[in-house]
Amino acid sequence: MPLLAGIESGGTKTVVAVALEPQTVLDRIRIPTSADPTETLSAAAEFIAAQVAERGPLAAIGIGSFGPCDPSPESSTYGYVTSTPKPGWASTDVIGILLRQLAKRGVDEVPVKFDTDVNAAALGEQLYGAGQGLSSLVYLTVGTGIGGGGLVDGELIHGLVHPEMGHIRIPRPVAEIEAFAGVCPYHGDCWEGVAAGPALGARWGVPGETLPPDHPAWELEAGYLAVGLHALVCTLSPERIILGGGVGSSENVISRVRPLLQASLNGYIDSPAITHNIDSYIVPPGLGDNAGVTGAFALAEQALAESAD
Amino acid sequence: MPLLAGIESGGTKTVVAVALEPQTVLDRIRIPTSADPTETLSAAAEFIAAQVAERGPLAAIGIGSFGPCDPSPESSTYGYVTSTPKPGWASTDVIGILLRQLAKRGVDEVPVKFDTDVNAAALGEQLYGAGQGLSSLVYLTVGTGIGGGGLVDGELIHGLVHPEMGHIRIPRPVAEIEAFAGVCPYHGDCWEGVAAGPALGARWGVPGETLPPDHPAWELEAGYLAVGLHALVCTLSPERIILGGGVGSSENVISRVRPLLQASLNGYIDSPAITHNIDSYIVPPGLGDNAGVTGAFALAEQALAESAD
Repeated sequence: MPLLAGIESGGTKTVVAVALEPQTVLDRIRIPTSADPTETLSAAAEFIAAQVAERGPLAAIGIGSFGPCDPSPESSTYGYVTSTPKPGWASTDVIGILLRQLAKRGVDEVPVKFDTDVNAAALGEQLYGAGQGLSSLVYLTVGTGIGGGGLVDGELIHGLVHPEMGHIRIPRPVAEIEAFAGVCPYHGDCWEGVAAGPALGARWGVPGETLPPDHPAWELEAGYLAVGLHALVCTLSPERIILGGGVGSSENVISRVRPLLQASLNGYIDSPAITHNIDSYIVPPGLGDNAGVTGAFALAEQALAESAD
Repeated sequence: MPLLAGIESGGTKTVVAVALEPQTVLDRIRIPTSADPTETLSAAAEFIAAQVAERGPLAAIGIGSFGPCDPSPESSTYGYVTSTPKPGWASTDVIGILLRQLAKRGVDEVPVKFDTDVNAAALGEQLYGAGQGLSSLVYLTVGTGIGGGGLVDGELIHGLVHPEMGHIRIPRPVAEIEAFAGVCPYHGDCWEGVAAGPALGARWGVPGETLPPDHPAWELEAGYLAVGLHALVCTLSPERIILGGGVGSSENVISRVRPLLQASLNGYIDSPAITHNIDSYIVPPGLGDNAGVTGAFALAEQALAESAD
């Protein structure tokens, strides 16, 4: 049975795991995504090489990466992290460095598929989690940032680059516009700039996770998430929205977001999924924290299938 | 050679045309979309039947319709206009009525494909207009309303229902929030509620088309369009945006929108298409007013091909 490696490369941590099929993680490590990509990817290669020594040959690798990155296989910078503000990572050839680090450790080159971390998570959820049977969905993570991926008619969303859903601009209450400028270095008060974890901390002066569940911050937060989700519903028309991340997947947040999204759409999108069954329209990830790595395994399986074509 | 019928069914007018191939309209009529769907669709059937008598048998029909409508072939209400506020048209079986009206006139049932008017226009532009060679694009019309369609990885966007891009909520200058509540009956100051033609009229007290090109209305309008396009870029990542409609396709508007979109994105989407080649990123329709009907012909061709499978 072929060994698959899945890498979920986030802005602060990287998860590396191996499996024989996407739903069962055999072993994993979690390493910091340091300011030195070669250091981080060497540690990933070291883990994979040890797994190969123990379990047998590697068949393929799937990578879900933070961005901006290049998920277009036709591009000369396919598999690069491109214009990220994260120190040390701009213009980093993730696939190339990883394969070289593996080669150094005696692991032969294998097919690799690379996409955004949130597209990987969307794929994992569609195949094995809360989106099974659907051909369209959005996976949105709200945590240290806001990021979204998804599928339209069964295909992961790509195009000019890839979605950057966290950077849409949203309307805000006038009093909030005056009280808080937002923290996005590019856009100030874009969605991520006012509604991701660091924005909560900046707005209220204490870390978001220390705010009690009945603090007014949460109703404002849910309103921001609802108005942004309103935009996603009107542009992508997803059959379901999966809300992940430390902030997004909390029951206190999701249960507030649902009625606020209904109120914001105000019946215009006349689908029972929204008007009557909102509890199963906006849901936490079915795979919990494993959505990204499961999706990375699924990308590895796709790489293997495509290399056999 | 098979005769194709293409119908572009808008909220105020319906264009019915015939062709042997999508790029050459043989004949067309333009009829009002009245409050009586049977009356409107009878007139469409009358025209098609006369064309069949003159030119030979009909092979297939493509319909691009105003919405909300049901473009899902698996649905029991496929080909219906569903929850529209337009008087007389809620829950209207457009395909069924049209085929019955054709049968009455001796025209046998043929394959039909039905989609939104803006998805049809997006398809027409992708195949024959300003989007040739692209697998992802957005077609946005800004006129009596705002509507958007598009393709992701070569597929027209569907899902829960279909996109309703005109109804996203956008941020506005505080002074404008205080000056004008917007005209959308569902959302007040959503995108369409502040930036479509009727909103221009309501905001400035005169019909939009009478405002001189240097009136401050146009810079505000372009700002609204830019901030909404910012959301489309961040959710759909299209390779190009085609801006149609009486307001959207005017040079005065498009030339203002381009730098404002660049300013709003502020370099975050680090693609030369946006940072350096914005003039070919946001463009008017290559097919002019024929985008919708050309796309309807293309839908008819798809219907024919699918019926032969």
